[in-house]
Amino acid sequence: MASGIAREQTVEVPPGVAAAVVEARTIGVVASVEAAGPRRARVAIDYPWRELVSDLPQLLNLLYGNISLQRGIRIAGVDWPAELLRQFPGPACGVAGLRALTGVAGRPLLAGALKPVGLGVRELARLAGECARGGLDLVKDDHSLADQPAAPFRERVLTVAEHVARANRQSGRSCLYVPNLTGPVDRLAERLDDLRDAGVRAALVAPLLLGLDTVRALATSSGVALVGHPAFAGSLVAPRQGLAPGLLFGDLFRVAGCDVVIYPNAGGRFPFTLGDCRAIQRRLLAPLSGLRPAFAMVAGGIDAAKLERWLPEYAVDTIFLLGGSLLGRPDLAAAASELSELVAGPVRRRGRR
Amino acid sequence: MASGIAREQTVEVPPGVAAAVVEARTIGVVASVEAAGPRRARVAIDYPWRELVSDLPQLLNLLYGNISLQRGIRIAGVDWPAELLRQFPGPACGVAGLRALTGVAGRPLLAGALKPVGLGVRELARLAGECARGGLDLVKDDHSLADQPAAPFRERVLTVAEHVARANRQSGRSCLYVPNLTGPVDRLAERLDDLRDAGVRAALVAPLLLGLDTVRALATSSGVALVGHPAFAGSLVAPRQGLAPGLLFGDLFRVAGCDVVIYPNAGGRFPFTLGDCRAIQRRLLAPLSGLRPAFAMVAGGIDAAKLERWLPEYAVDTIFLLGGSLLGRPDLAAAASELSELVAGPVRRRGRR
Repeated sequence: MASGIAREQTVEVPPGVAAAVVEARTIGVVASVEAAGPRRARVAIDYPWRELVSDLPQLLNLLYGNISLQRGIRIAGVDWPAELLRQFPGPACGVAGLRALTGVAGRPLLAGALKPVGLGVRELARLAGECARGGLDLVKDDHSLADQPAAPFRERVLTVAEHVARANRQSGRSCLYVPNLTGPVDRLAERLDDLRDAGVRAALVAPLLLGLDTVRALATSSGVALVGHPAFAGSLVAPRQGLAPGLLFGDLFRVAGCDVVIYPNAGGRFPFTLGDCRAIQRRLLAPLSGLRPAFAMVAGGIDAAKLERWLPEYAVDTIFLLGGSLLGRPDLAAAASELSELVAGPVRRRGRR
Repeated sequence: MASGIAREQTVEVPPGVAAAVVEARTIGVVASVEAAGPRRARVAIDYPWRELVSDLPQLLNLLYGNISLQRGIRIAGVDWPAELLRQFPGPACGVAGLRALTGVAGRPLLAGALKPVGLGVRELARLAGECARGGLDLVKDDHSLADQPAAPFRERVLTVAEHVARANRQSGRSCLYVPNLTGPVDRLAERLDDLRDAGVRAALVAPLLLGLDTVRALATSSGVALVGHPAFAGSLVAPRQGLAPGLLFGDLFRVAGCDVVIYPNAGGRFPFTLGDCRAIQRRLLAPLSGLRPAFAMVAGGIDAAKLERWLPEYAVDTIFLLGGSLLGRPDLAAAASELSELVAGPVRRRGRR
């Protein structure tokens, strides 16, 4: 089966069809096979990537193109060759760049979410202003806010940015507004103009909705920090098939250029384990051939009341996203302010950087 | 659980957070729930799509964004509102356009594949010429051929196109060369120029590698027929999770603008059933609000020796892709010619158009 994978992902013809010299320089080499339980094995395949990977789509294709259509194959991780990664600049800002944009050092960051979709521009802007006044470091559009009639893209971005800027002038802080840029690929240039008009420095993108390579292109040219959202990515990280969560949300989102990667926290309404969550963060922060480290934004189940429990589980370079539970509080700015004090206090941290 | 999905995919906040008027116009309505076995149910949710879907990424997000991160949810199908589909022009050529390009009426089409990756330009061009001389209707790049050193994109496209054109002048036929366009999104314009320089009228794209919305943009502006490849899409069509194969490869690839959709045949080296395969074809050919019907290209296990067995299983608007088994024949042109005669002969067909 391991040899079959190495062949399927490269020459994709039965033995004997291609010339021996072509097979020799093109097919992956099965470097090891270890039993890992009944009917399971852990396999290492060494691919001649120089002959195969000319761009990011081909990297994805080599890792999991045709074999995605088979059953029971999971890519646990990649030993990245430094020379391969030189093709991909990765995060343009990274942890340090985002800390510079928000002016926050030495503690985790807090983010709020603007939702629900269906709310009008004025109400979204009011929520954003309260989040900023309450001391949150970022406030992001929900990933379902696009260009709907209730809150059209350009109007929303200009108005929300203005409210956040006003709150920042009052507080002397630098809360960052992160609008959802995920939209038609042939209108991204126009939307980036809207972001520039609004003075916005960061944007939300969902790599699996937009295409991971479009995110890469944005990272090299958009001039804004990119916050990657996991929408539509879940079936890729099923337990016995697909890509390990650390590989997809850690390595690949970072290689594509996400400065921040959102993923569901353990104990929330998604079936991620704390082990998965910490593995993703490890891959976002690990040394990786000179690519900048990226922030984990832990979401989907962070209850404002339970933030204290989760703080020690993650590294200091973590952004905690408070969603519905924060929006449900009657005095949003006061609630945000309590949380900001909590996150600024001393924490006995389990995660290391 | 059904109400949870309808909420998760829209407002994404717990009850009581959003104003009742916003919830009323935004949340999906659970239209029906039917038991479908122990711990399984078939559910219909009616979404207020006008408030939600402003573009193709948001359509994917609404169907399977956040819930992709949960377990055990599968989208079996969509009852498409005609007005929603008006946003998406679908295939630019479709079945009739591709039949016009190849000059073939009243019978299934035959395609050959240029591979393996690692072969040089001259050898790939020779294979293409033999396929064309043997009477194949299309000859496509393998989806792993991108811009590798052994066969760089522009040189390959120009040389292969020239060999196919020469074979066409000799045969009086119109074999179509389909190079693999899946590559960096910020170089697609340049690659389309290469296709124009080569006189090429069709291209291969892998929507899950490139992004489905990039395919939509290409369909509206590239001027070439698009052949969609399923690489990287497999984990989306797992049996109990994700999207039904007919929905992903049938409806969504067609809505995005694929004129042809490649998928693995039953009985080959991928676990697709004949039921899956025929369901995909049904969705590619079904009336769909004025969108052009698209060809199924059945692949991945079509043995040249077994073509006769598969012919009656599919509609006449099918392209059969012969891969490794054809390339393995010593006289490629003669083998292709035999197959062309077979496919032109009378067939007792099970599939209907």
